[in-house]
Amino acid sequence: MSTSRLPNHISQQFDNELQDIRSKVLAMGGLVEQHLEKVLSFFSKGELEGAEYVAVSDHLINALEVEIDQDCSDVLVRRQPAAMDLRLVLAVSKTITDLERMGDEIEKIARLITHEPTVLSGNSYYHSASTLGKHVALMVRNSLDTFARMDSGAALQVAMADREIDVETGAILRELMTYMMEDPRKISPVLDVILAVRALERVGDHAKNIAENVIYLVEGRNVRHVSLEQIQKELEQGN
Amino acid sequence: MSTSRLPNHISQQFDNELQDIRSKVLAMGGLVEQHLEKVLSFFSKGELEGAEYVAVSDHLINALEVEIDQDCSDVLVRRQPAAMDLRLVLAVSKTITDLERMGDEIEKIARLITHEPTVLSGNSYYHSASTLGKHVALMVRNSLDTFARMDSGAALQVAMADREIDVETGAILRELMTYMMEDPRKISPVLDVILAVRALERVGDHAKNIAENVIYLVEGRNVRHVSLEQIQKELEQGN
Repeated sequence: MSTSRLPNHISQQFDNELQDIRSKVLAMGGLVEQHLEKVLSFFSKGELEGAEYVAVSDHLINALEVEIDQDCSDVLVRRQPAAMDLRLVLAVSKTITDLERMGDEIEKIARLITHEPTVLSGNSYYHSASTLGKHVALMVRNSLDTFARMDSGAALQVAMADREIDVETGAILRELMTYMMEDPRKISPVLDVILAVRALERVGDHAKNIAENVIYLVEGRNVRHVSLEQIQKELEQGN
Repeated sequence: MSTSRLPNHISQQFDNELQDIRSKVLAMGGLVEQHLEKVLSFFSKGELEGAEYVAVSDHLINALEVEIDQDCSDVLVRRQPAAMDLRLVLAVSKTITDLERMGDEIEKIARLITHEPTVLSGNSYYHSASTLGKHVALMVRNSLDTFARMDSGAALQVAMADREIDVETGAILRELMTYMMEDPRKISPVLDVILAVRALERVGDHAKNIAENVIYLVEGRNVRHVSLEQIQKELEQGN
């Protein structure tokens, strides 16, 4: 499995600029992780404060996206990067879009929670959503780690983990449907949980996209529509 | 409201390359529109063939994304574009991501339809989904038109139309929930319709993103997190 470092440039200033962009992406990722954690504390402990905060704080993540996007444009114009540097800027441009959309999905969950908290709190059907949330949070963490370390092998593992999230989501949806069938009065609140679970699944999809951006960045190949087994084979042969 | 044309370049070849990329984006958009139309023919006429085709044809859209992405990288490396040209390439890079994800959402709807077609067909609860689908399809068409004509004023109208889609989706979800409450045996098939309706809503979200990319391209501003009223004011003052 291959890891890579950015090449050193004759211009120390250019190095610093690229490093600065990478640090900002990781800061933005850290903020997304924080928001996810706050929302999940409702599922695991019934705490509402975190969700209330996240429901009105998505603009912080959006502001970082706009700032980094501008940094990318600036570097493209002033430095005219090629090869690995160009791929870094393009991968960052796509990664921050994914982080911003993760933020949107997490905000949606926060709004679902704060919309009907009393109906929803303390219900047994949170247990599975809480477990799924932990798995998705780990996947987000791992996707950011692979970006920080530029590790395409680890990125491939993250992309593959998305399949387990999809299978887990399917099982939870079936479970939640049985609660609806047992008691039609629960249809409305359980539907909110279903929509929250689907939003968690999409957070996982975006983490997968970030991992695929890392593979593109390190390996120089767009792998989004290639089978993961095929990529694994190629990475192994390359070592 | 302002419309813009790409500047002519000293290099006719460069002009041709940019024009070629724009044509490919519109071809990709046309394919997404076709897929959406095929899926919607199930809602309006109960025809299953279109959904069956779409469920196995998303790779056509994905292939175009990979191709255009590569074209964008090539132009950045060989031409080192600045200003409007750079914005075009970056806007294209984001737009094809949105088109690809629209394709994914439409594929999900196709899979929901082909998964349980006999249970679902001929049910009255399709009427609203069908109407929503027509509104979303129009929004997709308009977003591609604004990209073709580089019309930021029209793009703003598309972005604003997304709010109506969101309100319409909310009303449909409430309507669909009543079918579930009336007859618990309908919970599973109606949930499929709910998931399809949410997927349509997200297709509308991506059309909004494309429109915002056009505003960025023409006006040179990232407007994704600015209020639409604020942008409208500024566009009017600029004329």
